Amino acid sequence: MSLKVGTIVEALGGQLHGDSDRLITRLAPLETAQPSELSFLVNPRLAPLLAGTQAGCVIVGAAMHDAARQRPNGGDCIVVDDPHLYFARLTQLWAREHGGAARPGVHPSAVVEDGAVIDASASIGALCFIGRDARIGAGTVLKPRVTVGERCVIGARCLIQSGAVIGGDGFGFAPNEGTWEKIEQLGAVRIGDDVEIGANTCVDRGALDDTVIEDGVKLDNLIQIGHNCHIGRHTAMAGCVGVAGSARIGAYCTVGGAGMILGHLTIADHVHISSASIVTRSILKPGHYTGFFPLDENSNWEKNAATLKRIHELRERVRRLEAGRRDVGDQA
Amino acid sequence: MSLKVGTIVEALGGQLHGDSDRLITRLAPLETAQPSELSFLVNPRLAPLLAGTQAGCVIVGAAMHDAARQRPNGGDCIVVDDPHLYFARLTQLWAREHGGAARPGVHPSAVVEDGAVIDASASIGALCFIGRDARIGAGTVLKPRVTVGERCVIGARCLIQSGAVIGGDGFGFAPNEGTWEKIEQLGAVRIGDDVEIGANTCVDRGALDDTVIEDGVKLDNLIQIGHNCHIGRHTAMAGCVGVAGSARIGAYCTVGGAGMILGHLTIADHVHISSASIVTRSILKPGHYTGFFPLDENSNWEKNAATLKRIHELRERVRRLEAGRRDVGDQA
Amino acid sequence: MSLKVGTIVEALGGQLHGDSDRLITRLAPLETAQPSELSFLVNPRLAPLLAGTQAGCVIVGAAMHDAARQRPNGGDCIVVDDPHLYFARLTQLWAREHGGAARPGVHPSAVVEDGAVIDASASIGALCFIGRDARIGAGTVLKPRVTVGERCVIGARCLIQSGAVIGGDGFGFAPNEGTWEKIEQLGAVRIGDDVEIGANTCVDRGALDDTVIEDGVKLDNLIQIGHNCHIGRHTAMAGCVGVAGSARIGAYCTVGGAGMILGHLTIADHVHISSASIVTRSILKPGHYTGFFPLDENSNWEKNAATLKRIHELRERVRRLEAGRRDVGDQA
Repeated sequence: MSLKVGTIVEALGGQLHGDSDRLITRLAPLETAQPSELSFLVNPRLAPLLAGTQAGCVIVGAAMHDAARQRPNGGDCIVVDDPHLYFARLTQLWAREHGGAARPGVHPSAVVEDGAVIDASASIGALCFIGRDARIGAGTVLKPRVTVGERCVIGARCLIQSGAVIGGDGFGFAPNEGTWEKIEQLGAVRIGDDVEIGANTCVDRGALDDTVIEDGVKLDNLIQIGHNCHIGRHTAMAGCVGVAGSARIGAYCTVGGAGMILGHLTIADHVHISSASIVTRSILKPGHYTGFFPLDENSNWEKNAATLKRIHELRERVRRLEAGRRDVGDQA
Repeated sequence: MSLKVGTIVEALGGQLHGDSDRLITRLAPLETAQPSELSFLVNPRLAPLLAGTQAGCVIVGAAMHDAARQRPNGGDCIVVDDPHLYFARLTQLWAREHGGAARPGVHPSAVVEDGAVIDASASIGALCFIGRDARIGAGTVLKPRVTVGERCVIGARCLIQSGAVIGGDGFGFAPNEGTWEKIEQLGAVRIGDDVEIGANTCVDRGALDDTVIEDGVKLDNLIQIGHNCHIGRHTAMAGCVGVAGSARIGAYCTVGGAGMILGHLTIADHVHISSASIVTRSILKPGHYTGFFPLDENSNWEKNAATLKRIHELRERVRRLEAGRRDVGDQA
Repeated sequence: MSLKVGTIVEALGGQLHGDSDRLITRLAPLETAQPSELSFLVNPRLAPLLAGTQAGCVIVGAAMHDAARQRPNGGDCIVVDDPHLYFARLTQLWAREHGGAARPGVHPSAVVEDGAVIDASASIGALCFIGRDARIGAGTVLKPRVTVGERCVIGARCLIQSGAVIGGDGFGFAPNEGTWEKIEQLGAVRIGDDVEIGANTCVDRGALDDTVIEDGVKLDNLIQIGHNCHIGRHTAMAGCVGVAGSARIGAYCTVGGAGMILGHLTIADHVHISSASIVTRSILKPGHYTGFFPLDENSNWEKNAATLKRIHELRERVRRLEAGRRDVGDQA
């Protein structure tokens, strides 16, 4: 596997300072890159790594141009507007050039039920199951062992990782004298274009209407999306997130790992939820929201946790002290 | 897909006020239902939606009878004792009438090992794996891509969603000079009747005895049930819940999404755990239990979290103030 | 299924007090063991169970020797150095003797891509997928329905439970005017020897370098390991844990169920994280760390949670009281 620097710049742009015939054998982090390897600097805080890297070529923004060219180990650089974005596109070029693209077609071990419509350019991996009347759009890739339930629709250029389950039943029951009566989930799942869904992530079908994932949404692994949810475009969620049923999440949101959003809530556009934080009320104002217990040494946590369980009392005691102080003041 | 209102009332009961020949083409929420669609009102707080709905027919309780009949848009209603339960049964009728029932039999792509006994009325989906000597009861449905390990037993009328793993090894190791020595998991899993298990949920086999899930239990997606657990009948757990090994959970309990129950605990019947709450001690009294950090704007959370780490000190300071006040009082 | 006590002692050592011809039909907990069954006492706190057990033979440490021999119900005992470890090895012997070992070879329903190298002694279960150029080591067992992505490497004597996904894409995107540009994940996953990976657990491939799981690591079910992570040898993690990308976790660590470790952190060797605790900073000192909200009755939690959101204010009020008390003292 290799690419000439010149080929890269021709495909992706950027201003090359150095040898366009240099052969790149691998993309690598600054710390471990070798002279035949290409690296990149995205985070300005990591700039000190530039001086020490052995990378034959580095991708940098304009502000790092001089630092990149004055490296003690020598080597070339490509100056670009947005090194992170450039690097992303370079990984795509690299994967394409080295045969990483999925082949169109349905693997013979996959099971496709009657009425399913799969675009000729889509790739359905080994041991996938596509239910009846499901639809898979152009250029979409299902890695091996994915389930797409009946009547679910996946748009174009989506990528679904192994083990994902699209269109399992939503969790709906009516109570009946202590037991639970099944509410058949008659809706489906509708997924837009350019959506990525992680390994073993579940998106449940709606009870009556469909669960909807809009264009450009990115879901990491082991995420649960309950029935009837609506997730706005370009929202991204990290691993282990849970979204309970009928939540309506805006566009351009992010949810950190293991964040949890309860059911029937509305989250505005541009809301950012920290990892492991629990959303129990609707959030109508864009912003950054957090709620988890800070980590501590166990012995200290134990003392604080015990106090926390009586914090309401503590507030009352402070209130009495404040009242008493006023009394004392009056007496004085 | 359609059903006459008369057919519905004939099958499920209820008092129809209106045209029994009205053809229903879909079940739909009040907000979006059209004149050819049937809707329902369960939650009395949503009663204001009744006036505005376009639904051709609505299912209501007796208290909403007048409101349902005086809708400005007209339309019929079915008056029933319990609209939620009626609606559940209507979804079941709808699914049955429209071919939603799983066909009995074992899909040819499923792998069934020697000695497994599958009831003739059960339905084993595509790409399932059933281990040796496992047993699957009458009317039980395994959606595609389910694993049932060797010797595990699933009762009658269960529904197992795609990706679920019944009978993976419990997590058991003996420490051995810093390394871990495998404890072979010699038990199995026993699941009662009318149990539903969600997509990608895992129920581990017991170490010596079996892990037991009693009749009527409902588990949502991405739940972990550790080895040797015992879950009482009609208990329901929402997505992303974890139950560590050897926990004994009563009947008629509920656990909210991402709730976590540690190992070797006993939970009484009729205990309700809020979402994202961590159970670290046995709960012997029925009731509603909660424990998670409330969400806040990030900047406010940061200040509170920092203070929380010194809350024990704060209590000491209040104690000293209280002691001092008594001193001041004495002096005065 | 049965084994003579003499056969057990011959294979595993220990000092038998009793009849070596006694036939053992099952391994069982002290509480439920029958006269033909073998039990064991690991936890000294459970010693009171010894007196009541019906077990025909019990495994005990030297300190429990007398108690084991003076059981009112009679029965034999095997005295060993480490009953927990002995019991682990006994379960292994039991499984081997009773046909529990996986057969070497690739199940005909598994899909193995070109270039994958599978050791002849490895066992690849039904409906597994092994990507091109992957490698599976000697004696390793993949239960049914496991995914091992292209170029991923699994060492010797590993055990991968059903539904696990090794080598799904890491979650990497560059922001691009509100949308997300895919960073192709060009690395792979390297797993050492004697590793166990639980059901539906995901280990993502690295972006550039590989994600590394060292020898002897044990991961329970439904765990998420992000791209570029490095997990040191003999570290164990319970179910539902999440480790975000590029975390570097030491050797001999433990993480309790649903613990969460954020990205790019370093965790030293011998660090123990409690269940449901969130690690947001690097931990460079061995020890036991905790951070979760203690469970409470819901009504009490509600009061405390409300106070918690104003705890920073409370601290300020205490500060003012302290200042005021000094004032009062001055005046007095």
